[in-house]
Amino acid sequence: MPASKKKPAATPSEALCPHPLGTLISIGGHERKDVSTDTDADMADDSILRRVVEEIGNKGYILVLPVASEEPKESAEDYIKVFTDLGCSRIEVLDIQSRQDAESEESLRILNEAGGVMFTGGDQLRITALLGGTAFQRRLKERYTTEPFVIAGTSAGATAMSTPMIYQGRNNAGMRKDEIHITTGLEFLHNVAIDTHFVARGRIVRMAQIIATNPSCIGLGLEEDTAVVVTQGRELEVIGSGLVVVLDGMGVTDTNIHAVEPGSPFSIRDLRMHLLSSGQRYTLPIIEQMHV
Amino acid sequence: MPASKKKPAATPSEALCPHPLGTLISIGGHERKDVSTDTDADMADDSILRRVVEEIGNKGYILVLPVASEEPKESAEDYIKVFTDLGCSRIEVLDIQSRQDAESEESLRILNEAGGVMFTGGDQLRITALLGGTAFQRRLKERYTTEPFVIAGTSAGATAMSTPMIYQGRNNAGMRKDEIHITTGLEFLHNVAIDTHFVARGRIVRMAQIIATNPSCIGLGLEEDTAVVVTQGRELEVIGSGLVVVLDGMGVTDTNIHAVEPGSPFSIRDLRMHLLSSGQRYTLPIIEQMHV
Repeated sequence: MPASKKKPAATPSEALCPHPLGTLISIGGHERKDVSTDTDADMADDSILRRVVEEIGNKGYILVLPVASEEPKESAEDYIKVFTDLGCSRIEVLDIQSRQDAESEESLRILNEAGGVMFTGGDQLRITALLGGTAFQRRLKERYTTEPFVIAGTSAGATAMSTPMIYQGRNNAGMRKDEIHITTGLEFLHNVAIDTHFVARGRIVRMAQIIATNPSCIGLGLEEDTAVVVTQGRELEVIGSGLVVVLDGMGVTDTNIHAVEPGSPFSIRDLRMHLLSSGQRYTLPIIEQMHV
Repeated sequence: MPASKKKPAATPSEALCPHPLGTLISIGGHERKDVSTDTDADMADDSILRRVVEEIGNKGYILVLPVASEEPKESAEDYIKVFTDLGCSRIEVLDIQSRQDAESEESLRILNEAGGVMFTGGDQLRITALLGGTAFQRRLKERYTTEPFVIAGTSAGATAMSTPMIYQGRNNAGMRKDEIHITTGLEFLHNVAIDTHFVARGRIVRMAQIIATNPSCIGLGLEEDTAVVVTQGRELEVIGSGLVVVLDGMGVTDTNIHAVEPGSPFSIRDLRMHLLSSGQRYTLPIIEQMHV
């Protein structure tokens, strides 16, 4: 068969989806909670949770979501205290314990009046198993997409924001093939893997294994008390006291992850790494925004 | 803080990305290759590979991609023979053995002149580890998105088309938490997990485990010599001699995957299952087409 005349390809701008209007704040865990008052100027500049409060501004109350936690009450109380210390007058908590809770009209009503949400830490697999595909997740995504809505999360709550999402990895594991597990996260970002407590728990190797299985992914390793603020679905700003490790697999020249047996060490070459600190910016590549 | 007046949400049509113009043909493995000539009318109706040839039509040559296979030459020769038997006069093979091959100008040139590609079987982790994030993958996605380009694949070549992608699962495993592994596939479909040899190898439990980890996913279990033809990124038509099992997690009411220990059996309730056969249609839910 002869090659036909090709239809002209769409220009890149046509091929891209419009960017989301919301803001993500992904926190690496153990963020400072010793803020005391609004007038404590020394603390005002670098507190991550203050930034969360500022980003939500007057758009509505902060909705605390302790869904990742097996002790949701205690987990929520910590955030009620710190947000109160930061001067918030309206804070709500939604304790989702089942997929039915995540489908209920009451949960959607509470979400609809919020200006932003704060996912606490715990186990990210609780978040995806309980929220994945529910009306609550869809509404969250819709609000983030079409409004200046804020989605913040720490530790498990940060890890679950993007896809792919690591779960059930042993802290120091990831040296050997198949020591990690991955699934789909909440998909506020695509082709981005977020890991937390990144330096404190030695997690760079497990991030490299995620990337080896498909190098189309950008890894964001967030140290404790450190966060990225994401706008337009791709513009990152680092805040907080530690480092963000960016692992870029786009230029990987070789990996043997497909060739070695489970349980064996794997190799990968030419990962690109950036270490970023407070105030620095990074733009995610656009591959994930194409409309398929 | 008082709730602010909400910005009117975008209408659903604004919130959706434009659909891809290409066609996917995902085949469950062991498709009939005993086609003999163009004039064999008995075989014309139900041969999956004939449908691949028809969909590519006069848009360009068929490009065989044996990247999943550790014996690419033998694997490609099978398809050269059957496509020749089906009357194709132009068939090319591109043997990608490294990520450098997938970045080369020569590979892109060969892809640019094709009317469609055929991924052979093998190991899907070879496909994502070698192609993920490369110029070749991006060009494939761009052509599929903006042109009536055909992407066909069988077995591992079908599994790798969508995301999430299962790999390294033992055939009959998946009963116990963490017996499966998932990563990002080539992302021609989002929130769809494709598995093949589905009935012959008893894979329904491992598909249920993928869904349990995040029920936002639709599972497509393709039996051997059976395929789905996907147009507009979501309209499915079943072809071939067997069944397609659709596992829909959107209505899942409960799972304990987040609560049980690795190695333990997990539970999931209210998966919805459809069994579809040749000529039947199914429309994927649109959640995956939102632009974040």
